Amino acid sequence: MRLLSSLLLAGGLLALGPASAQMAQSAAATNTADSLAIRKIYDEALLRGQSYENLRYLCEQIGPRLAGSAGAAKAVEWGKLTMEKAGCYDRVYLQECQVPHWVRGAKEKALVFGNKGKGLPLAVCALGGSVATPGSKPLRAGVIEVKSLAELKALPDAAVRGKFVFFNRPFNDAYIEQGRAYGEAGDQRRAGPAEAGRRGAVGALVRSLTSARDNYPHTGTTQYGDTPTQVPGAALSTLGADQLSQLLQADPKLEVELTMSCQTLPDVTSYNVVGEIKGATHPEQIVTVGGHLDSWDLAQGAHDDGTGVVQSMEALRLLKAAGLRPERTVRTVLFMNEENGTRGGEKYAQLAQQNHETHLAAIESDGGGFTPRGFTAETAPANLRKVAAWQPLLAPYLAGQLTPGHAGTDVEPLVAAVHPTALFGYKCDSQRYFDIHHTAADTFDKVNRRELELGGAAMASLIYLLGKYGL
Amino acid sequence: MRLLSSLLLAGGLLALGPASAQMAQSAAATNTADSLAIRKIYDEALLRGQSYENLRYLCEQIGPRLAGSAGAAKAVEWGKLTMEKAGCYDRVYLQECQVPHWVRGAKEKALVFGNKGKGLPLAVCALGGSVATPGSKPLRAGVIEVKSLAELKALPDAAVRGKFVFFNRPFNDAYIEQGRAYGEAGDQRRAGPAEAGRRGAVGALVRSLTSARDNYPHTGTTQYGDTPTQVPGAALSTLGADQLSQLLQADPKLEVELTMSCQTLPDVTSYNVVGEIKGATHPEQIVTVGGHLDSWDLAQGAHDDGTGVVQSMEALRLLKAAGLRPERTVRTVLFMNEENGTRGGEKYAQLAQQNHETHLAAIESDGGGFTPRGFTAETAPANLRKVAAWQPLLAPYLAGQLTPGHAGTDVEPLVAAVHPTALFGYKCDSQRYFDIHHTAADTFDKVNRRELELGGAAMASLIYLLGKYGL
Ligand SMILES: [Zn+2]
Ligand SMILES: [Zn+2]
Repeated sequence: MRLLSSLLLAGGLLALGPASAQMAQSAAATNTADSLAIRKIYDEALLRGQSYENLRYLCEQIGPRLAGSAGAAKAVEWGKLTMEKAGCYDRVYLQECQVPHWVRGAKEKALVFGNKGKGLPLAVCALGGSVATPGSKPLRAGVIEVKSLAELKALPDAAVRGKFVFFNRPFNDAYIEQGRAYGEAGDQRRAGPAEAGRRGAVGALVRSLTSARDNYPHTGTTQYGDTPTQVPGAALSTLGADQLSQLLQADPKLEVELTMSCQTLPDVTSYNVVGEIKGATHPEQIVTVGGHLDSWDLAQGAHDDGTGVVQSMEALRLLKAAGLRPERTVRTVLFMNEENGTRGGEKYAQLAQQNHETHLAAIESDGGGFTPRGFTAETAPANLRKVAAWQPLLAPYLAGQLTPGHAGTDVEPLVAAVHPTALFGYKCDSQRYFDIHHTAADTFDKVNRRELELGGAAMASLIYLLGKYGL
Repeated sequence: MRLLSSLLLAGGLLALGPASAQMAQSAAATNTADSLAIRKIYDEALLRGQSYENLRYLCEQIGPRLAGSAGAAKAVEWGKLTMEKAGCYDRVYLQECQVPHWVRGAKEKALVFGNKGKGLPLAVCALGGSVATPGSKPLRAGVIEVKSLAELKALPDAAVRGKFVFFNRPFNDAYIEQGRAYGEAGDQRRAGPAEAGRRGAVGALVRSLTSARDNYPHTGTTQYGDTPTQVPGAALSTLGADQLSQLLQADPKLEVELTMSCQTLPDVTSYNVVGEIKGATHPEQIVTVGGHLDSWDLAQGAHDDGTGVVQSMEALRLLKAAGLRPERTVRTVLFMNEENGTRGGEKYAQLAQQNHETHLAAIESDGGGFTPRGFTAETAPANLRKVAAWQPLLAPYLAGQLTPGHAGTDVEPLVAAVHPTALFGYKCDSQRYFDIHHTAADTFDKVNRRELELGGAAMASLIYLLGKYGL
């Protein structure tokens, strides 16, 4: 693109057509003061935003922070200190909770033995919560490939017993939103090892949950539930899974040797970090905004969920810097242990219930820090219409999309506990998220400064509107 | 983000609110056959798309391809061959044009001499079209910093004569669309060296046109027009510009030594590459889709404009693969020399005029291959309303934004030549584009496969609708 083009391209964001004409009318009806307030929020975010440098510290100085780890403890300290230094909170405090403590142990190994060679390595990592191979020793067995849990169910025991079950269902690339593909293919990771063990297999190898074609294995929680026999579960990179599948076609009798030494240690005391600003006129009504402070042990946790953490802190700083004192009480919550337990989210909800709190809304940012699209919402239709009327205020900032949909894992326990009027999820572009999700590639350099800061400003704007108008 | 979340998040893209309700009505009114046709286009693009691998070849096997260079000649050959192999065109041919031939010469150097040290290096590159320093030798002079051409104009001659003018206007980060900041700050690159020469300066140092804070200098065309004295113009990286500005505050008498050996050679014969599919029912009405085949010499030209090139070829392949024979004639055009001359765009328009062609529409993709937003349009209000009625068909694919605005530099000459009914620009997210624009960092790895393929499918969908319904 050359220069003259852009002078004209700057022409603006006038929407068109009958639908858009009606949006323009709504826009005229909204308060000019609100437009100006939101513009102030974005000016602060884009010109003096702090999310990016906060995220750099969290990723590069603290790094991986799985619940129970030393990194998680450091992250709690950092979160508290950062909120105290921000100077926008009336009160910063911790909420104690007990969290699981799973450790990966030595780097995992997987080797293929067959016609084609001795000990061809596959890129592999243990799934979170998995048991080790017996005695943390190499475990060698044949492999049976399936594309789904249902396909496993249909197999005779003899085909499964003593083998690794290789779950090789790919992402459905036809979906526009990547979250949908993740949702569909995800059961093989979550429940694959449990089902394999139940059927007499010695372990499970699971294709990574991604559309990317590379050599990063993607970890993530697997759950045994009440399975009597717990067998190890490992993720293969997508290239590794493709390779194993091809090798199996040529040589169905090949064997894989897997070595993992992960284990679950006793629970550890950890914390949510909470910062609160009392509402000026309705202090008893609470708007919560949060992300999760923990990350997977392999990752810097940049997009999952360092971005949500720094945006949730930044949102309140932006309101203060823009001179917008919230009329309702607003809280930043950095939730602990989203990845493998949700203990932080449950603790926050439990305390809210014990304290008989009224939660107007809770907003979560846990879908990455990519370029904005808008928000998902869980609320009654009448509230949804009210929020939809604010769309013209957010659309110029690329955050005008409003869709019914899940808000976030950490705020979900609030529903049963205190019946919040609405839950919201910050929704950003989904195309790049699962390329790096739960891998060593989820690093700070994948985050674009402006995309990140635009997200914090979108969240601040929604908080401003909720705080001013309620629901 | 964990797994259960996404199962619910998959809930869908139902739009809400009064504006959206009206959009839903329009959607119901549009033809179901169109919905299905567009879904077929996207299935082909997402499941079997070829843009990404084509782009890999163009970037990694051909690489930089400034007009007149050996790389550009290779790109022409590749473009023709790739279209012939695609098997979807009735005819593939070249359009000859004469293009400028500017060469950078040896790697440029800039050193700062002042109180603080001897020969501190700055990251620098010649602007495209610049003359060399005299005799290609080091040119040493003092520096006067300004923030704009107007500020230069207000300075007395004595303050400018014999010095480098240092244009240090930053991007305005407050704008949501980066193209607007580029448009505003861009005159310092385009006209800065000419103005500096006119005022008796020995050269111009220009802050790179980007919001990114790094050490990549961004090249791009500068034009001398009728300036009697042509002086060299160089881009500084943003970090380099900030550093020079700080050093100048401490030591206004510091000197910079610049060495550049670029030159303009005689014009070279080059080509647009054109592939055409004859329309089934209205062959005399033409829809053109294109990007520019040339890139800057420092870059692989991935996002500028390799993505536009491969998307413009892919769009027609997608139509064929989806079984949608266009009812109007459709042409892919790979334009030569957008970056420093637009000779290809002018030649295409000139031939269209000579042949008395009727151009219904021309679509250009030259804003990067990032995640889709929609289209810009230049057309009469009645046509715009017609296209706006198609928004519900494109919105589920994230391409529903329709804004009046510049379509593209290569298709612009068509306006005067053949008065096309409409011009369109493919519009994708702008946040990351100028971080890498015209730099060595504009490489294949910056492109996301799905984002790229979604763009080609959006273009194919618009072509399908234009081809079917006209305007
Ligand atoms: Zn371009
Ligand atoms: Zn997460």
